[in-house]
Amino acid sequence: MHKTVTLDMAESILEANRGLALQNRALFKGHGVRAFDFLGAVGSGKTMLIERLQELLEARGQRVGAIAGDVAGDDDHRRFLAAGIASENLNTGKDCHLDAHMVGHALERMDLDLVDVVFIENVGNLVCPADFPLGAEKRVVVISTTEGDDTVRKHPLIFRDADVCVLNKADLAEPVGVDMDVIERDFRTINNHAPFIRTCARTGEGVDRLLEALLD
Amino acid sequence: MHKTVTLDMAESILEANRGLALQNRALFKGHGVRAFDFLGAVGSGKTMLIERLQELLEARGQRVGAIAGDVAGDDDHRRFLAAGIASENLNTGKDCHLDAHMVGHALERMDLDLVDVVFIENVGNLVCPADFPLGAEKRVVVISTTEGDDTVRKHPLIFRDADVCVLNKADLAEPVGVDMDVIERDFRTINNHAPFIRTCARTGEGVDRLLEALLD
Repeated sequence: MHKTVTLDMAESILEANRGLALQNRALFKGHGVRAFDFLGAVGSGKTMLIERLQELLEARGQRVGAIAGDVAGDDDHRRFLAAGIASENLNTGKDCHLDAHMVGHALERMDLDLVDVVFIENVGNLVCPADFPLGAEKRVVVISTTEGDDTVRKHPLIFRDADVCVLNKADLAEPVGVDMDVIERDFRTINNHAPFIRTCARTGEGVDRLLEALLD
Repeated sequence: MHKTVTLDMAESILEANRGLALQNRALFKGHGVRAFDFLGAVGSGKTMLIERLQELLEARGQRVGAIAGDVAGDDDHRRFLAAGIASENLNTGKDCHLDAHMVGHALERMDLDLVDVVFIENVGNLVCPADFPLGAEKRVVVISTTEGDDTVRKHPLIFRDADVCVLNKADLAEPVGVDMDVIERDFRTINNHAPFIRTCARTGEGVDRLLEALLD
C-alpha cells in the first residue's frame, strides 16, 4: 500500500518537475540565453570547469551566469562571483538534487538580459539528479579520473542520458593508475551520441573542445 | 497538499527503516558479529579501505563479510570476493542509498556464524544515505583529498552523525593542492566526538589506526 502511494506521488513530482523544466527552458529561450546543466560527484571538478569556460567565453565577449547548487554552504557561489560570473546560490538543505522549481526561483533573481550563457551546477551526486531535468539545453556529466575506472558501470542511467560526458583530471590518471580508455569504452557501450571529452580543468587542457561541444 | 502527504510518507518510510535497522542490529549482536557502515562519495576509496581492513583482520584470525552496495554492477562485489571476503552484492537500481530492508535480505543470504566482522559499503553518495541507518554499530564516512577541501562544509549532516571520519588518499593531497588541516578543522566544528583518521588505502598507511577506532 505504502509503496503504491509513494510511487504515484513520486511520479506526480517528476511530472510537475518536467513541466517546470519546460518553463525554465522557454524563459532561457525568450532571453536568448544558452543554458547547460553540470552533473557529477563531489570533487569531479564541475566548478573549476565552469571557471575555465567563463574565461573562454569572456574572451569572446560572452557574459556568463551560474547557479551554484549544493546541499549547504556557498563555496562554489563565492568562487563564481570571484571569477566575474553572475552567480545565484542554491542550497537544497537535505535534498540530493536541484529541481526545476528551485532553479526557476533562482532565475527570477538573475537578470537574464545581462547574460548570454548560464551554467547550472547541480549537487554533487551521480544518482538523484538524473531524474530531474532543469530546463537546460544540454546535460553535461563530469567524471574525475580519481574516482577509479568503474564510475560509468556503477551509474548507467545518468550516463545514458548525458548530452556531453567529460573525463576530468586527466593529468591524475597515471598517478592513480586509471586507464581512461576503459572509462571511454564503458561510456560508449551505453551512450553512442554524446561527445566524450578528456579535460584537465587545472591547466585548461581540453576545455576549448568542451566549449565547442556545448555550443555545437 | 502534495507536499504534506509526501512529508508524511517520507516520515513513515524513515520510521519503518529505523525499525528494520534495529532488527539488523539485533541479528548482528545475536551472532556476535561487529558491523560497520561505510559511506562516502564515488571514488573516495571505501572498497580499498575495506580490502586493507580485511588483510589486518585476517592476520588476527578474524573472518570478514561485506555487503557491496551500488546502483548497478558488481565491481566492488567481485573485488571483495577476490580478497577472500564473504560478499553479498546489493544493487539499488535507481535508489541513491541502501536501506535496512535491503540489507536485512542480504543478511539472510550470509551465514553470520562464519564471519566476525561485516562491512556494509553504501552507495557512493554523501546525501541520501545519511537518513537511513542500516543496523551497523558505527558509521564511517570516507572523504578523499581529491574531492577538494570543501566536502565537509557542503555536507554537514552526514559528517555531524559520523562515528568515524576517514580522510583517504592522503598521498594525493599535495599533488591536488588540498590542505588536510582545513578539512579536519571543518570536521571538528560540527563533530567533536568522532575520531578523524588520515589514510592512504593504496599503501595501507593509517589503516591500522582506522581498525583500532572501529574496534574500540
